[in-house]
Amino acid sequence: MLETIRVNHDFIQLLDQRRLPFHTEYIDIRTVEDAHSAIRDMIVRGAPAIGVTASFGITFALRGKNRFSARDFGLAKEYLISARPTAVNLSWALNMQERRYKSLKTDKVEEIFEILFRNAERMYSDDIAINKKIGEYGQSLIEPGSKIITHCNAGALATCGWGTALGVIRSAFQRGKVEMVYADETRPYLQGSRLTAWELNQDKIPVKVITDSSSAYIMKKHRISCAVVGADRIAMNGDTANKIGTYLLAINCRFHNVPFYVAAPISTFDPEISEGNMIVIEERDKDEIRKAQEYRIIPEYIDAENPSFDITPHNLISAFITEKGVFTGREIRDILKA
Amino acid sequence: MLETIRVNHDFIQLLDQRRLPFHTEYIDIRTVEDAHSAIRDMIVRGAPAIGVTASFGITFALRGKNRFSARDFGLAKEYLISARPTAVNLSWALNMQERRYKSLKTDKVEEIFEILFRNAERMYSDDIAINKKIGEYGQSLIEPGSKIITHCNAGALATCGWGTALGVIRSAFQRGKVEMVYADETRPYLQGSRLTAWELNQDKIPVKVITDSSSAYIMKKHRISCAVVGADRIAMNGDTANKIGTYLLAINCRFHNVPFYVAAPISTFDPEISEGNMIVIEERDKDEIRKAQEYRIIPEYIDAENPSFDITPHNLISAFITEKGVFTGREIRDILKA
Repeated sequence: MLETIRVNHDFIQLLDQRRLPFHTEYIDIRTVEDAHSAIRDMIVRGAPAIGVTASFGITFALRGKNRFSARDFGLAKEYLISARPTAVNLSWALNMQERRYKSLKTDKVEEIFEILFRNAERMYSDDIAINKKIGEYGQSLIEPGSKIITHCNAGALATCGWGTALGVIRSAFQRGKVEMVYADETRPYLQGSRLTAWELNQDKIPVKVITDSSSAYIMKKHRISCAVVGADRIAMNGDTANKIGTYLLAINCRFHNVPFYVAAPISTFDPEISEGNMIVIEERDKDEIRKAQEYRIIPEYIDAENPSFDITPHNLISAFITEKGVFTGREIRDILKA
Repeated sequence: MLETIRVNHDFIQLLDQRRLPFHTEYIDIRTVEDAHSAIRDMIVRGAPAIGVTASFGITFALRGKNRFSARDFGLAKEYLISARPTAVNLSWALNMQERRYKSLKTDKVEEIFEILFRNAERMYSDDIAINKKIGEYGQSLIEPGSKIITHCNAGALATCGWGTALGVIRSAFQRGKVEMVYADETRPYLQGSRLTAWELNQDKIPVKVITDSSSAYIMKKHRISCAVVGADRIAMNGDTANKIGTYLLAINCRFHNVPFYVAAPISTFDPEISEGNMIVIEERDKDEIRKAQEYRIIPEYIDAENPSFDITPHNLISAFITEKGVFTGREIRDILKA
């Protein structure tokens, strides 16, 4: 498996996910601007991977500076958060760095860089450990012979490794429980066909790509066992922002009486958001719909609407799979309050 | 509006719908083989347009022949039906021609050609008249200020003119009732973005393209008034085969309590099919999913499943809009029996 983020001595490299699966190229990220545009342009995507990228990104704001103030930190943080408004891990990771920054006794820029960069490295390895735990807890929900549907990419490519939703699938596959994974292609950005199917194929996990709209037919025909998806931000009542199409898949699962699971680290729960309608939904360039990657499908004069996320209400979610265990929305809320 | 089918003295021309919206090219259809491959390769698509194309196509089997037997007719008919197994209008139109053929007193090939070609012309104009009636009956269901969602293309391009689902929208728009049409892009073949949005845009009917998976979010956000779709084959109990994704849209409508209408000529009801699970679902080339038009998205070694249609159970359909009026599934069955 290719690494999503390569950590070097004082910079990182990101696998350019826009060019997968045909091109595997790494892009150097050495400045806060590099990190901002990598997140905005979806060179890196997936809530956990975005969070860790930003936690490295903010350290680059120190590079070449003689002085660095709390105000400089705040500006760099806001700048990075503005790259993708919906993913909470972005601000979560930057808040972690901010706490570390504020705890420092030194004002030597090089020392601060060193400490924050090592802190980002720790968040990087923590993310992999968290995913392994999510996978382990999640696989307990998977029956032998399962046919699992997933949407978008909540895999190794969306994290620092292993994956959240695909982490559950990987862990279940290791135990011989997975018969087939159906990957929604996930227009417009095609994370399902370009990333999820490719990633699972590399690991020899059986996978078929389907169009997003065929999921109801496929669910009925193949008697799908469950759906597992990731999350970009979860409100305290369990309402879940995730890639556009997740809400429709959850409705589809409810209609067919198929369990619908959300796999995400605890950091995806946003204590400041009590319910889903408070979450800002990012609208992206309409040309993503008018094109498939670089290929133009329809002319610019045709109008389009391109929400990047939707909100799945908590009552459509069978369980949340986290690094602390498997919970209902209500249970999670009690844990987070405690 | 460009014509879907151009009827000439002794041949037809089809607008090549694979190349829309950037190229408007007509292809001459002069042989039964031309007609077969035009249907199979989706130069022409949409149940009514396929039916009329086949009704012309079978006349071309006579061209250049000295003799033409009932067996020759039967072979040509089977050959044409094999081009797309799911659409019933194909066999309906050919049965119409067969009845006309069997009623003939002459065995002069040129005379037979002439009579059958004129019969196909009549089916062509009948189709437009039927669509106008569907539009007229259907618009009565549309409230002023409506926001309507549609899937695939059941428009002028799927018929000989005006359209079934889009005929309803056109007729409602003429009465000032349509605020916005949301066109599902309809992967993999993108009939929604390439054909429906383009066709409505040409007529200055307000339309936005959305990805298929965003229909739940869009329905909730914009308080969609109703969904209108076409049909390829309808069982006698009302179960409806239509473009893949129709079933999911109907589930979505049910969840949001939004009326879901099927607009189709009476000829789409198949008296030989009592319920949906008897309908053969065409599976198409997996490369349609691995590509967007000519653009390759993922490598050939990635597996895919590409059903071209699905079955929407009758209990998800609010009403059928036909040239005879608006009916529930039960009412239609009684009419057809009578």
